[in-house]
Amino acid sequence: MTKRPLDILDQVLNRQPVIVSLKGGREIRGVLQGYDVHMNLVLDKAEEEMEGEIVKMGTLIVRGDNVIYISPKLE
Amino acid sequence: MTKRPLDILDQVLNRQPVIVSLKGGREIRGVLQGYDVHMNLVLDKAEEEMEGEIVKMGTLIVRGDNVIYISPKLE
Amino acid sequence: MTKRPLDILDQVLNRQPVIVSLKGGREIRGVLQGYDVHMNLVLDKAEEEMEGEIVKMGTLIVRGDNVIYISPKLE
Amino acid sequence: MTKRPLDILDQVLNRQPVIVSLKGGREIRGVLQGYDVHMNLVLDKAEEEMEGEIVKMGTLIVRGDNVIYISPKLE
Amino acid sequence: MTKRPLDILDQVLNRQPVIVSLKGGREIRGVLQGYDVHMNLVLDKAEEEMEGEIVKMGTLIVRGDNVIYISPKLE
Amino acid sequence: MTKRPLDILDQVLNRQPVIVSLKGGREIRGVLQGYDVHMNLVLDKAEEEMEGEIVKMGTLIVRGDNVIYISPKLE
Amino acid sequence: MTKRPLDILDQVLNRQPVIVSLKGGREIRGVLQGYDVHMNLVLDKAEEEMEGEIVKMGTLIVRGDNVIYISPKLE
Repeated sequence: MTKRPLDILDQVLNRQPVIVSLKGGREIRGVLQGYDVHMNLVLDKAEEEMEGEIVKMGTLIVRGDNVIYISPKLE
Repeated sequence: MTKRPLDILDQVLNRQPVIVSLKGGREIRGVLQGYDVHMNLVLDKAEEEMEGEIVKMGTLIVRGDNVIYISPKLE
Repeated sequence: MTKRPLDILDQVLNRQPVIVSLKGGREIRGVLQGYDVHMNLVLDKAEEEMEGEIVKMGTLIVRGDNVIYISPKLE
Repeated sequence: MTKRPLDILDQVLNRQPVIVSLKGGREIRGVLQGYDVHMNLVLDKAEEEMEGEIVKMGTLIVRGDNVIYISPKLE
Repeated sequence: MTKRPLDILDQVLNRQPVIVSLKGGREIRGVLQGYDVHMNLVLDKAEEEMEGEIVKMGTLIVRGDNVIYISPKLE
Repeated sequence: MTKRPLDILDQVLNRQPVIVSLKGGREIRGVLQGYDVHMNLVLDKAEEEMEGEIVKMGTLIVRGDNVIYISPKLE
Repeated sequence: MTKRPLDILDQVLNRQPVIVSLKGGREIRGVLQGYDVHMNLVLDKAEEEMEGEIVKMGTLIVRGDNVIYISPKLE
């Protein structure tokens, strides 16, 4: 077991925005400010594209059980 | 791990209303008066927009497993 | 953490009816007689509006995982 | 915390039938013979109304996570 | 608490077939050969009616979280 | 409790293919090479029928919570 | 119990891409860089086919409860 999934999150704290894909098809982008073992997340400067527009949502506390994946960066 | 998700909630207790996004598409706004480790919430002065009207719901105890995210403030 | 969600329930035991919103869209009103840490509830004089009529259901033991929120009072 | 939800069930063991409302819309009636902390239930003389007819099902062991509520009596 | 739900299952081990109702509407009949605390089941001589025909499935290990109820006998 | 569900799986390790029925209607066939208490499975020579064709999938690690049942043999 | 499901994952760390089948029908391909007991995964060089095109997603942290199966190789 080389890289533990939650440890990876440490490397992206307070850096470039991450993409968080949620169950139900929502996708939120924001700066990861914190997390815990349940994958509860704190996202700062969160925003979501809805019907072609970017909606700014400020800080969000996301409950971990909604998360499908977290994408720290795009290639 | 800089900011723990649940600790953030401490900072918004009894202040400006938060937005709570629930599974199933409901969105409730209210003053956060308390919470626990399951993200069970106490919301005071809770209200919800339904079909264009604001429905006032007083105090609510929300079971944490319904929560998608909590938004302490709008930018 | 000022008010713990489950402690709030203590204050409404055996008083005016509470509204319990359940997953799946049902909403039951009744006098809260008891609860536990899972939010399992005992509701007395429970009633539900179905197709415009009030159906009286007596005492109910509600399994907590069905609960979205409990509303102790209407404003 | 005056009446604990599961303790209420003790009072209806082996008495008049209870109604058990299940997720998915099924409703089963039967004499409660036992239960455990998960709300797993033993129902004797269980029956269910299906398409206007009463189907007798004998003894049932119901897995607790299917239960919405248990109604010990009708008013 | 007179009869514990899982203890009832002891009485029907290796006897007449039980009916197992599963989430999603499937119903399987078979001889109960074993179970554990999760209601994981071993069914022998399992069969299921599909589109009016009996499909024989031999031995099945059913994961407990799929179970709605187990019916040890028909009246 | 005569046969424990997970112990049965020991008897079919590395033998004839088992059928694994998954939530959502998928059915996968393969040689059981391992499992754990969550019913996480290792299937070798896994294959699935899709639209009338057999798709070979090699080795699969199946997460246990997707399993409805495991069928060690057909009668 | 010959091969434990999570141990198998050790053998494919940092090698050829694995296919991860997710609930909801999504299928992601990537190099497994890490995992934990919940089947939380770190996938590097992740990509997904969407509407006939390959979308590159870089590194992903996938929450384990979304996983149906992991396929280390195709035959």
